[in-house]
Amino acid sequence: MRSNDKYQQESGVLVGVDIGGTKTAVVLCAEAPHVLWRKEFPTKPELGWEQAMDKVITLIREALIETSQKPRRIGVSCGGPLDRETGTIQSPPNLPTWDRVPVKQILESNFKVLCTVENDANAGAVAEHQFGAGRGCRHIVFLTLGTGLGAGLVLNGRIFRGANGMAGELGHVRLTEHGPNGHGKAGSVEGWASGAGIAIQGAETVRAATAAGEQTSLASGLETLSARDVGQALSAGDRVARRIVQQAGERLGEALAILVDIINPERIVIGGIAVRLGEELLEPARRRMHEEALPEAAAVCSVVPAELGEQIGDMAAIGVAMGLHDV
Amino acid sequence: MRSNDKYQQESGVLVGVDIGGTKTAVVLCAEAPHVLWRKEFPTKPELGWEQAMDKVITLIREALIETSQKPRRIGVSCGGPLDRETGTIQSPPNLPTWDRVPVKQILESNFKVLCTVENDANAGAVAEHQFGAGRGCRHIVFLTLGTGLGAGLVLNGRIFRGANGMAGELGHVRLTEHGPNGHGKAGSVEGWASGAGIAIQGAETVRAATAAGEQTSLASGLETLSARDVGQALSAGDRVARRIVQQAGERLGEALAILVDIINPERIVIGGIAVRLGEELLEPARRRMHEEALPEAAAVCSVVPAELGEQIGDMAAIGVAMGLHDV
Repeated sequence: MRSNDKYQQESGVLVGVDIGGTKTAVVLCAEAPHVLWRKEFPTKPELGWEQAMDKVITLIREALIETSQKPRRIGVSCGGPLDRETGTIQSPPNLPTWDRVPVKQILESNFKVLCTVENDANAGAVAEHQFGAGRGCRHIVFLTLGTGLGAGLVLNGRIFRGANGMAGELGHVRLTEHGPNGHGKAGSVEGWASGAGIAIQGAETVRAATAAGEQTSLASGLETLSARDVGQALSAGDRVARRIVQQAGERLGEALAILVDIINPERIVIGGIAVRLGEELLEPARRRMHEEALPEAAAVCSVVPAELGEQIGDMAAIGVAMGLHDV
Repeated sequence: MRSNDKYQQESGVLVGVDIGGTKTAVVLCAEAPHVLWRKEFPTKPELGWEQAMDKVITLIREALIETSQKPRRIGVSCGGPLDRETGTIQSPPNLPTWDRVPVKQILESNFKVLCTVENDANAGAVAEHQFGAGRGCRHIVFLTLGTGLGAGLVLNGRIFRGANGMAGELGHVRLTEHGPNGHGKAGSVEGWASGAGIAIQGAETVRAATAAGEQTSLASGLETLSARDVGQALSAGDRVARRIVQQAGERLGEALAILVDIINPERIVIGGIAVRLGEELLEPARRRMHEEALPEAAAVCSVVPAELGEQIGDMAAIGVAMGLHDV
């Protein structure tokens, strides 16, 4: 008997577990998106996955006791690669100590309810489609713009995974023959337009600017420059920071144009860094997208920041628990 | 009452009309893909669409009389752009005199059965999925490699059109910052890897080769060089022709890599010129695709020539008549 049948429950609350590179959250919902209970803890690499999973189990128990609820189903959202069928996490880049962790099996044997595991790009795409900026759309692309750059595709209202779950790897697509390295490829979308790309390109831009005598608050601490630093300097009115973000926005726009020409989505929702940088990033991205993509397809595609903001991880995991990703 | 209800028929034969830039064919099938009756005529621009449509009507009448059949439904496959809802052909580049032609209305009022109009990339994709090289696959991309380069996407076994029917415009995607013009964009996939692209790039390669003292049968008639000429020279063992095809194949492979990374299809089926040029084009395309795309996604994606060959137009139109494109 498959766990899908064995652990089927008709009533109880939804349990969401959002496992991220910096923190892991446990969330309870009776009816999404209203959160009944929530707690998080830092996902330190030195913690190891065994201790982290023990902590998750403890928190779920605590949540169920405090709310006097029984669980109906557990949904886990986590960085890929992972095996959905077995519910195993396979060494995500942001969780270096999590190698072949049987998350589904651990949670099912502890709570005797069905547990489903989904990668964060797909889980986030469905969350924004159901509860956020993609509501009411038939076809959306959700971009996770963090250290890396991935895409979740919702086509005909359902997650689209492709032949073996690899669909949406926009970060790996080449924009230029040479260029910054990202996703293991020089000149890729991830090299040009991800958080890591903004940091690398930013450092170069700052060096060129200071060499030309331009003042910028980013000149100090250049060795550890991050996309967050660039965003903070931008908020403080730094002109070099503005130029860095504009360059990244234009490259992002070239990537959006590829999506528009091939997939023709109604809406592209961009989370993570795009929410923090806002129009400073999105305006040049949209402009470049309209220059590059077919006008008829670009005309029907809006490009908007994710709406769920800090809540996206919670709703991503709850969406998985709701079975929104079941094929 | 919509024509979809008014003209619904339960019995009779399927009528396919394949309107192409060089010829238009009328086909009758009782059970696809077995053809009961077929005739074609040249689609000369000087004929004008009124006369061409009169000829289509005459041929359908002739077919029904000769086979003693009644029509069940008519399917039309034609180059885009077109409006599926109203069944109107809107000035396709390969049919310069066909401007806003209400094909659906004309055929429905003549034959009192439902008529559906579909663009040839989508119709071809479904035909290859149903009867050709894509049989048994869940997700395929069908590339029409003719003068231009378009893609039809079959995802989850059904045609995927996108927000306003523009999905699959791979020919418009940029491969390089500069380069040959195609689909109105320099450096596009169509500029590098379509029939027109092969002709333009081919002429350049021939000029460089002859300047370097290399012998090639393509040196004469360079002003009117076509992809077909290149193919014939290739068959005759011309080394310069081989180089031209190899270059186009590599660029095609870069385009395939974008499809693999974003859509993760099981199979990419390539029609038109790819069928004629065969492995000389496909081998470098596959090699480059594997160099450029994510290995896990490329590993599950086969790249094959279309199987239906000369029959693809007939089966594309019959597939439309079968209602395989109905959402």
